[in-house]
Amino acid sequence: MSGRLEDRRVLVTHAERYIGPPVVELFRREGADVIADQSEYADPSTVQEVVERAGRIDVLVANFAGPPHIMPVTNMLTDATAFEDEDFEAYLQELVWPLLRIVRATLPQMIERRSGKIVGVTSATRLRAIPGLSVYSAARGAQNAFVQVVGNEVAAHNVQFNAIGPAHIANNMYYTSEMLEDEEVREQFVSEIPAGRIGEGEEAAELALATDASDFLAGQVIPISGGWVT
Amino acid sequence: MSGRLEDRRVLVTHAERYIGPPVVELFRREGADVIADQSEYADPSTVQEVVERAGRIDVLVANFAGPPHIMPVTNMLTDATAFEDEDFEAYLQELVWPLLRIVRATLPQMIERRSGKIVGVTSATRLRAIPGLSVYSAARGAQNAFVQVVGNEVAAHNVQFNAIGPAHIANNMYYTSEMLEDEEVREQFVSEIPAGRIGEGEEAAELALATDASDFLAGQVIPISGGWVT
Amino acid sequence: MSGRLEDRRVLVTHAERYIGPPVVELFRREGADVIADQSEYADPSTVQEVVERAGRIDVLVANFAGPPHIMPVTNMLTDATAFEDEDFEAYLQELVWPLLRIVRATLPQMIERRSGKIVGVTSATRLRAIPGLSVYSAARGAQNAFVQVVGNEVAAHNVQFNAIGPAHIANNMYYTSEMLEDEEVREQFVSEIPAGRIGEGEEAAELALATDASDFLAGQVIPISGGWVT
Amino acid sequence: MSGRLEDRRVLVTHAERYIGPPVVELFRREGADVIADQSEYADPSTVQEVVERAGRIDVLVANFAGPPHIMPVTNMLTDATAFEDEDFEAYLQELVWPLLRIVRATLPQMIERRSGKIVGVTSATRLRAIPGLSVYSAARGAQNAFVQVVGNEVAAHNVQFNAIGPAHIANNMYYTSEMLEDEEVREQFVSEIPAGRIGEGEEAAELALATDASDFLAGQVIPISGGWVT
Repeated sequence: MSGRLEDRRVLVTHAERYIGPPVVELFRREGADVIADQSEYADPSTVQEVVERAGRIDVLVANFAGPPHIMPVTNMLTDATAFEDEDFEAYLQELVWPLLRIVRATLPQMIERRSGKIVGVTSATRLRAIPGLSVYSAARGAQNAFVQVVGNEVAAHNVQFNAIGPAHIANNMYYTSEMLEDEEVREQFVSEIPAGRIGEGEEAAELALATDASDFLAGQVIPISGGWVT
Repeated sequence: MSGRLEDRRVLVTHAERYIGPPVVELFRREGADVIADQSEYADPSTVQEVVERAGRIDVLVANFAGPPHIMPVTNMLTDATAFEDEDFEAYLQELVWPLLRIVRATLPQMIERRSGKIVGVTSATRLRAIPGLSVYSAARGAQNAFVQVVGNEVAAHNVQFNAIGPAHIANNMYYTSEMLEDEEVREQFVSEIPAGRIGEGEEAAELALATDASDFLAGQVIPISGGWVT
Repeated sequence: MSGRLEDRRVLVTHAERYIGPPVVELFRREGADVIADQSEYADPSTVQEVVERAGRIDVLVANFAGPPHIMPVTNMLTDATAFEDEDFEAYLQELVWPLLRIVRATLPQMIERRSGKIVGVTSATRLRAIPGLSVYSAARGAQNAFVQVVGNEVAAHNVQFNAIGPAHIANNMYYTSEMLEDEEVREQFVSEIPAGRIGEGEEAAELALATDASDFLAGQVIPISGGWVT
Repeated sequence: MSGRLEDRRVLVTHAERYIGPPVVELFRREGADVIADQSEYADPSTVQEVVERAGRIDVLVANFAGPPHIMPVTNMLTDATAFEDEDFEAYLQELVWPLLRIVRATLPQMIERRSGKIVGVTSATRLRAIPGLSVYSAARGAQNAFVQVVGNEVAAHNVQFNAIGPAHIANNMYYTSEMLEDEEVREQFVSEIPAGRIGEGEEAAELALATDASDFLAGQVIPISGGWVT
């Protein structure tokens, strides 16, 4: 099974974080010309530079992951009053603004060619509440709503904008190998996942590819969570 | 039917906008002691002042509505690239930040008393896409996700935090009487609503009250849309 | 708080089961003329007789609950292959067919008067999977889908058809006092409910009333689950 | 792109209907050994015979489509009271019972091998109401709820049971070429699809394959509708 992405130019953002590494690896194995962008996006002008430098973009994998130190996923008992303005602000800067801006910057060339795919990598946490993750979920909720509406708007231009929403997938931001080495933490997670195991990044990457393969999806956020969200 | 809110102290934010006016009217008729706050919330410190001035708050109706001039609901054909950073920024300032902050400021007294209700007034637009409303929906999506998570966190403290998500309800922000006087616009809306009519603000207010009445709801966003969202 | 249902003729089905008893009690306290029907509905002609005998029906509470011996809610480890045709057949006969038929039989008079409310009492289990309840959930899923579509169809006739979907609410069918007396079973349930307690039947009844109060809901299934479903 | 299903034995039910033909074609092109079953399933014993005759089943595509003459999708103005018991009964016999039985019959061998995929082909109609389709939606709703629960139950056995929910996809049962030749009917449909066109069966088949490719999905129903459901 190979060559599924031959002749496709793919831009992957935050390529070194979250689902970025397995996406880059799988997409290259499938023949894509992958631009593995590692820019920080705090500066609004970064987006324009990245897109211009990229040239033609057939597929945009809009993968954004915020700084993990802000609100650890294990903090299950966080007091509801505990988040600070800075926590949400950070998620806006790392997750929401970059998505809005890069989609806006990339769409004109796709609409003009009447061809393009955008795969957001967001989260399934909006679909099922996790105590302690209120502002993280608010940021992911903003992303998912944005995918839904813009996915609808651009479908008629033959641009497919959908998202995958990972949960309980090993990655270097929220489900780090350090965290999962703690047997107790790991057991706690596994006990909540119908599949009985943590997912692998490549499984999410495969679905990012699949979403890309389907021309009749628009504005969907597909949870990939081992059955945790149904 | 009256007296349903006797001896309840209710704080209603943006009391002069959106679903605020019918909530204030109905809740007063039902015997509540209503603080109809009309503060602007651009300044982060406003929230603390409003909550301190209010004293005991049994029910918080967190009703926030952004400036209607930014992205009119009738702009159905908006190019996906048309929104500016300022548009989303405005929605964050008017809708999202005030909600996060006022909930955080009000929860401690409710948790301490082990009693309280928070009714968010958000929107059903996240549940069904409307082309042209991408950043508005992103802001409402952030609100809804926040309700969902915090509603779960505080349920064990006997504080019920839920939301109503109006759509196609007449109000002075998004479905103004000026807008609805245009026969063509009105017809277009009505044709999309299974109920065959625009909703009245009081119908949303009634459900805000009802949500409040139910002690076994937590983190729910109830769309009220005449069947438009199902 | 009383008199909210004065002059309303209400038919409650399976009045002695599930959410029937608290609905009958609350609705009577609120002034309704309640017909607490206890018919079995195995015979298709029963529906017609019940509706004819009832005469004018302002509100139909379509509360149906199947025989609890078939698939106990505690059977969490049931093999997926374990259900028999008879199990699903029983749920069809007790839950699905009666709902379809009584709604069909009651709608003509409501549509003719351009006034009426139907409140289905279904379940939140379709919205979140419980292992072991596959055919029960299939039956509830059929009910919820039916509410959604017919609720949309009849909204334009000023008939509001919505449902409440209880989960983790004490009742005499699925969450019996016998079951909940087992401390271990009770603890297991409570640990899964964000509200930290089992709901009371009256809380569901209150929302059935509330749904009834709102004229701008159509085809909605409102989960009432202490935050278990969000 | 080929060979994605090499060495896989695939059983496709109702192979000559609905999404069956494009699934058979695509899966064969991808190297699968496809059993294109055309049995009627009215007789409960049929399922056992089909499964036994099939031998090893790596992938089951549980594609069931009911007789199109019962409630045409174009009947948008159907009176809510118009369905007959026979209509729902037919959908149960053609859609629901066969799914329940074939999943039950196929799971033991998959669970024993700790390997297997089941892809249900249901419908997105439960996710968005279409007036006139109440009993069709009830039947599809039963299917989707069943997928959700059993998908959760079997995930721990390394069996992935998910579904695709087509809507507005051309097929020989509900969106026939005859129907779509009527320019007015076609225009009406297209006007409701954000993608601006009717989907092709192969697009659904591709996603059936993709669902199959992902090992970390469980109990999901993925709508494929050109953005009609979001």
